[in-house]
Amino acid sequence: MDLKQELFEKLRAKEDRMIEIRRYLHQHPELSFKEAKTAKYIADFYQNKGLDVTVETDINGEHGVIVEIDSGKPGKTLAIRADFDALPIHEETELPFASENPGVMHACGHDGHTAYMLVLAETLAEMKDQLAGKIRVLHQPAEETPPGGALGMIKAGCLEGVDNVVGIHVMSNFPFGKIFYKEGEVQTGRSFFKLTIKGTGGHGSSPHEANDAIVAGSYFVTMAQTIISRRINPFDMGVVTIGSFDGKGSFNVIKDQVVLDGDVRAMTERARNTIGEEIHKLVKGLEVAYSVKCDLEYTTDYPVLYNDPAFTRQAANILQNTKIDRVTDVVETAAIPPSEDFAYYAEKVPSSFIYVGAEVEDKAVYPHHHPKFDINEKSLLICAEAMGAIVVDYLTEA
Amino acid sequence: MDLKQELFEKLRAKEDRMIEIRRYLHQHPELSFKEAKTAKYIADFYQNKGLDVTVETDINGEHGVIVEIDSGKPGKTLAIRADFDALPIHEETELPFASENPGVMHACGHDGHTAYMLVLAETLAEMKDQLAGKIRVLHQPAEETPPGGALGMIKAGCLEGVDNVVGIHVMSNFPFGKIFYKEGEVQTGRSFFKLTIKGTGGHGSSPHEANDAIVAGSYFVTMAQTIISRRINPFDMGVVTIGSFDGKGSFNVIKDQVVLDGDVRAMTERARNTIGEEIHKLVKGLEVAYSVKCDLEYTTDYPVLYNDPAFTRQAANILQNTKIDRVTDVVETAAIPPSEDFAYYAEKVPSSFIYVGAEVEDKAVYPHHHPKFDINEKSLLICAEAMGAIVVDYLTEA
Amino acid sequence: MDLKQELFEKLRAKEDRMIEIRRYLHQHPELSFKEAKTAKYIADFYQNKGLDVTVETDINGEHGVIVEIDSGKPGKTLAIRADFDALPIHEETELPFASENPGVMHACGHDGHTAYMLVLAETLAEMKDQLAGKIRVLHQPAEETPPGGALGMIKAGCLEGVDNVVGIHVMSNFPFGKIFYKEGEVQTGRSFFKLTIKGTGGHGSSPHEANDAIVAGSYFVTMAQTIISRRINPFDMGVVTIGSFDGKGSFNVIKDQVVLDGDVRAMTERARNTIGEEIHKLVKGLEVAYSVKCDLEYTTDYPVLYNDPAFTRQAANILQNTKIDRVTDVVETAAIPPSEDFAYYAEKVPSSFIYVGAEVEDKAVYPHHHPKFDINEKSLLICAEAMGAIVVDYLTEA
Amino acid sequence: MDLKQELFEKLRAKEDRMIEIRRYLHQHPELSFKEAKTAKYIADFYQNKGLDVTVETDINGEHGVIVEIDSGKPGKTLAIRADFDALPIHEETELPFASENPGVMHACGHDGHTAYMLVLAETLAEMKDQLAGKIRVLHQPAEETPPGGALGMIKAGCLEGVDNVVGIHVMSNFPFGKIFYKEGEVQTGRSFFKLTIKGTGGHGSSPHEANDAIVAGSYFVTMAQTIISRRINPFDMGVVTIGSFDGKGSFNVIKDQVVLDGDVRAMTERARNTIGEEIHKLVKGLEVAYSVKCDLEYTTDYPVLYNDPAFTRQAANILQNTKIDRVTDVVETAAIPPSEDFAYYAEKVPSSFIYVGAEVEDKAVYPHHHPKFDINEKSLLICAEAMGAIVVDYLTEA
Repeated sequence: MDLKQELFEKLRAKEDRMIEIRRYLHQHPELSFKEAKTAKYIADFYQNKGLDVTVETDINGEHGVIVEIDSGKPGKTLAIRADFDALPIHEETELPFASENPGVMHACGHDGHTAYMLVLAETLAEMKDQLAGKIRVLHQPAEETPPGGALGMIKAGCLEGVDNVVGIHVMSNFPFGKIFYKEGEVQTGRSFFKLTIKGTGGHGSSPHEANDAIVAGSYFVTMAQTIISRRINPFDMGVVTIGSFDGKGSFNVIKDQVVLDGDVRAMTERARNTIGEEIHKLVKGLEVAYSVKCDLEYTTDYPVLYNDPAFTRQAANILQNTKIDRVTDVVETAAIPPSEDFAYYAEKVPSSFIYVGAEVEDKAVYPHHHPKFDINEKSLLICAEAMGAIVVDYLTEA
Repeated sequence: MDLKQELFEKLRAKEDRMIEIRRYLHQHPELSFKEAKTAKYIADFYQNKGLDVTVETDINGEHGVIVEIDSGKPGKTLAIRADFDALPIHEETELPFASENPGVMHACGHDGHTAYMLVLAETLAEMKDQLAGKIRVLHQPAEETPPGGALGMIKAGCLEGVDNVVGIHVMSNFPFGKIFYKEGEVQTGRSFFKLTIKGTGGHGSSPHEANDAIVAGSYFVTMAQTIISRRINPFDMGVVTIGSFDGKGSFNVIKDQVVLDGDVRAMTERARNTIGEEIHKLVKGLEVAYSVKCDLEYTTDYPVLYNDPAFTRQAANILQNTKIDRVTDVVETAAIPPSEDFAYYAEKVPSSFIYVGAEVEDKAVYPHHHPKFDINEKSLLICAEAMGAIVVDYLTEA
Repeated sequence: MDLKQELFEKLRAKEDRMIEIRRYLHQHPELSFKEAKTAKYIADFYQNKGLDVTVETDINGEHGVIVEIDSGKPGKTLAIRADFDALPIHEETELPFASENPGVMHACGHDGHTAYMLVLAETLAEMKDQLAGKIRVLHQPAEETPPGGALGMIKAGCLEGVDNVVGIHVMSNFPFGKIFYKEGEVQTGRSFFKLTIKGTGGHGSSPHEANDAIVAGSYFVTMAQTIISRRINPFDMGVVTIGSFDGKGSFNVIKDQVVLDGDVRAMTERARNTIGEEIHKLVKGLEVAYSVKCDLEYTTDYPVLYNDPAFTRQAANILQNTKIDRVTDVVETAAIPPSEDFAYYAEKVPSSFIYVGAEVEDKAVYPHHHPKFDINEKSLLICAEAMGAIVVDYLTEA
Repeated sequence: MDLKQELFEKLRAKEDRMIEIRRYLHQHPELSFKEAKTAKYIADFYQNKGLDVTVETDINGEHGVIVEIDSGKPGKTLAIRADFDALPIHEETELPFASENPGVMHACGHDGHTAYMLVLAETLAEMKDQLAGKIRVLHQPAEETPPGGALGMIKAGCLEGVDNVVGIHVMSNFPFGKIFYKEGEVQTGRSFFKLTIKGTGGHGSSPHEANDAIVAGSYFVTMAQTIISRRINPFDMGVVTIGSFDGKGSFNVIKDQVVLDGDVRAMTERARNTIGEEIHKLVKGLEVAYSVKCDLEYTTDYPVLYNDPAFTRQAANILQNTKIDRVTDVVETAAIPPSEDFAYYAEKVPSSFIYVGAEVEDKAVYPHHHPKFDINEKSLLICAEAMGAIVVDYLTEA
């Protein structure tokens, strides 16, 4: 029998366990950088079974777990990544296995990622003699919170000797039964900033004795529109959103200070850099023009996630040429706005990030990060088979 | 002896009582429109003494008290006004007679106004046979809080038959020993507004699916600058202050709504009207330009306080030609920014509003509405004599 | 011998004539909608040879020429388009065959388009018995000037019965020896507008008696930045440029009127429509906010040029699988900013617009519309063979 | 007979000559700093008559003429000023004595100023033995054109030993028969500026490769509104007008440069200084914010014209207490917007600038600087008598 079909048979037999693990994790979510128990659960999974794999924990002093499955034969090294942190959201799903930690919720599907990955890794470890090269499983913490867990994993050497990296994300709002890929830029790079503008307060009737921070802040917002409209290449995607203008005060008192919070998105590093430079210039210009004092905390966050075209095509070909349970289509998708710290791996090594449709059936669909977010658990087997197909074909190619 | 000097002698003898009353009121401040006990104190003052005056209370269902002193002889009717409400400020003076009502304070001198007025009215009532015409004493509540207590007094008929109105304000930051007057516009008219701008919220990375209320609000602030710079007569005083821009949110969520609070000041009704019209037009234009929905609550508040030139000159002449205890100078002053509901009387009847310097000696001076505000109590006698001189000369003129 | 190679052999033999024609046209350029002599030259070319083709002239009362080559056998109808108007530019090339019409120049390569097309059409007419279906040659005038010549051709029925349309553009700044294609949006849609803002003039020292059109115009420019930054999908390309702000006046006179000219580009009709709607809204909002009177002349010009993906892939496959003289590569390209009225054909019929690199050798390269613009004449044979290959394969497919 | 009435009698007798001189000057207008013939006419007037006065010409290398009338007796020195330059306006009055110099016109009444002054000075010279002290007649050139002729006169010492200066201006739009005065600030101070904003040009579809000067200029205009609305004392008069925004170009080319011309008015030097400082700051801020290069030529022009209150009261008293032919009223006026270089004298020496109503009768009234401007010639005698009255009373006071 074909090696992939042999793998799929084993995975099918373990589907209930996958779901069980997912539910356990869902019930015990932990925030980014604080996933100590989840990490222990992962490490125990491998170590309690006596699998012939190496397990490293506490990667870079954080909660990452790296598991290496060595076929013993020469060949390539493929890294496969699953993240496991949760979000500061109070769950409202009313699922029987809803979060037991108030204010913390797996509202992005990382519980599912980890569940399928554990079962898949276990199975691949059992079959490793039939493969060549190595599989490095990256159980990554803290994807949700800048600066993100990927950086620590890389710093600790998780990409040493790795030829390519693959990640999968379940998508609650993509149709069930489909797998999606895209070559090139696929998720935005992100930066964010906090701008404090300090003027001088005073009586509303005497503006000349004060220096109005609301006026300065408002002109900043209007001036910042030119960054997208005039400074970036119009073929580049870019967004500057001022999501918060904190200038609450009394109608007849001139406001001494306002605080603005901004969000920056771009689909090329070129555009992201331009946006950052222009914001810095506008802030300096504002200080000069209006004699205000500004504090700008500008954070360059996750980069643009770039799927290596050749490797992505290779992965897509494998998926398209494999009979995966429940999958009707493997199709190209458009880029999507959110950011992902998987992008850091992709900066270092040719990588590909793939989406598995996980829309629930017979109930309302909620987007990621929503308190009622849920995934179709039948997509976990799809994830496991899809990732398994890539691993098997990749590590058995001539 | 000269009638004024006779009056002054009586007043000098009652100076301690004036101060005592002021301290009692200071200790028992009441907020605008809630001055029930103060009003009773005032009414009792007249009624317990069996003075030959008429006392009306609960004017217009509010706490005003109107006292009429009728000489029995034909002549003019002069209204003299003292306000008696306090402010929502927590006193920090450490005076032995500091406020006993936490969070409420006489921080504008209305306690002093009422104290001198009671003693003066009592004395004038005693001397009324030596005068002609009538004195109407307006004990007015709620000067500090729009729509102000003057309107209710007027509605109840307090100006019926009145030829002129005089008011005095003690000024903690004007030099002690001086009296100040000004013909024409002397305090600003005020309006204020609350502008709610409703857009549509959304994810920070997808502005086209939202409608950014912070952007609309910021453009409004920049556009509103043209009202003062281009629409009012540059010889007119005018101010538009946006004192509050309430747009606090999350950096990566497009804000659905912001609330702006604005303060409008002007020294002519012409300018105040123009400002009001322009704000309404800008708001309508904003709705059209940015497809936002705006709620504008625009309140036309106290008018410009206009001192009738002829009557003010008459009053100033009286003051300049009278030997008033402790007064070294009676001088012209410039207009001042705050607003006063005395302006409503002045709209109806030729009136004059006069300032008595009340800077404290040997300690720090604090402005009106400051938690450490205080007045020089020696100015109360000045107020009583100055107002008394005007009454006497006015009601005895040929 | 292969039919395409037979065609190519004939074309190679006529290369000198192609160049000769191109030089003749280059020397006798005519402006858009005024190309009477060029049209006659084209019609004569076919008619003087007694070719077995039908020739229609004066299409829609303009100067278009439609030539139909009918194989006599059933099959598809393919339209192939070449434009032939020149630009209002004064040539500075110093070529021996430079323009003889001062101020008019073939600075975009349409002379080359027509030259290769005439020779190709003649040759295809000679070989038509070996094909099936029909070839409709669209000699189109007035590509350079809105509303463009394509509309008239379509109105006259040039697309009736046509299955697909192909066009080729020589590119002076694309490398010689390469052919470029792109599926989907490949050239921007364009709109443009003239906005007259009428205020009221007046003396510089009395803004309240005037209504400053420069101020209104400036706020419009700042407000218009939000269209690109906030209203269109950030994944869509869009540009709004105010290229002209005509507000020259005297420093101390308030300007009564300004005229703004704007340019709009977009890569999707969705974005182009949004931009148009938003500009109309901003203008209406400006009128309300600032009491100015606006005249907006908004012209929706050439649409986005959309290359039908399936047909483009088919054409690209033909080119990639054919040995074309001098061609080393047939590659995908990125979208480019200029607009093209070929887009009107593509709106009606699945079409593809292809680029042939025509960089000159051994001398400076100038962009299109430059007074020193020139093309590599060796690219004309490439154009003829490339277009010929598509025609032959298309009209002989099973 | 009263000395003033003796003077008035002589002046009445010379009224025809005044008018004749005015008409001659009106017919022969000369532009600021180019009034050579007018200056010669003035000097000849005195010198040809052999009057006992000293005449200095070519003051400071310009065309000023200073005439001193010395009574021979000790006393004060009073300077009286008349300006004599014309404007670059093409006359459209159709008067029989209209300008013979095309494009040059006495459209501000300086012809009248000089005419009455010559006749008055001649008469005072004849009567000088009856006076004490000295009269210094300032025939000043170049009032209309910055930096103005007053500066050169002062530099040359025209104010040495002078106690006070008086000037009179005829007003075509003030009612005939009235004289107007005002204490304190009476005409605005002025500054003006030329701001060149240099960006980088480019194709309209590629803003990121250019730097749009129209956008930068527009933001500057909106930012500059805050100077009046927020930076100057709202009790101060101030205006910033951008009268010219020269940004004409082509709709699809990004503009590389715009030139703005601005006019600044203020009624206090405090406000004028603030405006100047803020414009400089905004320009620097604009450079930083938008990476443009700015050239700002900022000219501080005529100061606020300040009428010394005591001296103005003295002059007004003289006028009110003198029976002047045709004068029905001597009244206070409001400040007026235009600027005057008489302000430079007033900065150095207590001075007063007075207005004489000169509305024409039985025909349309045109404002100053209008091509159809005219004055009522019957006001010249008023000017002469009014100025004469001040001189006589001033130089004969006890």
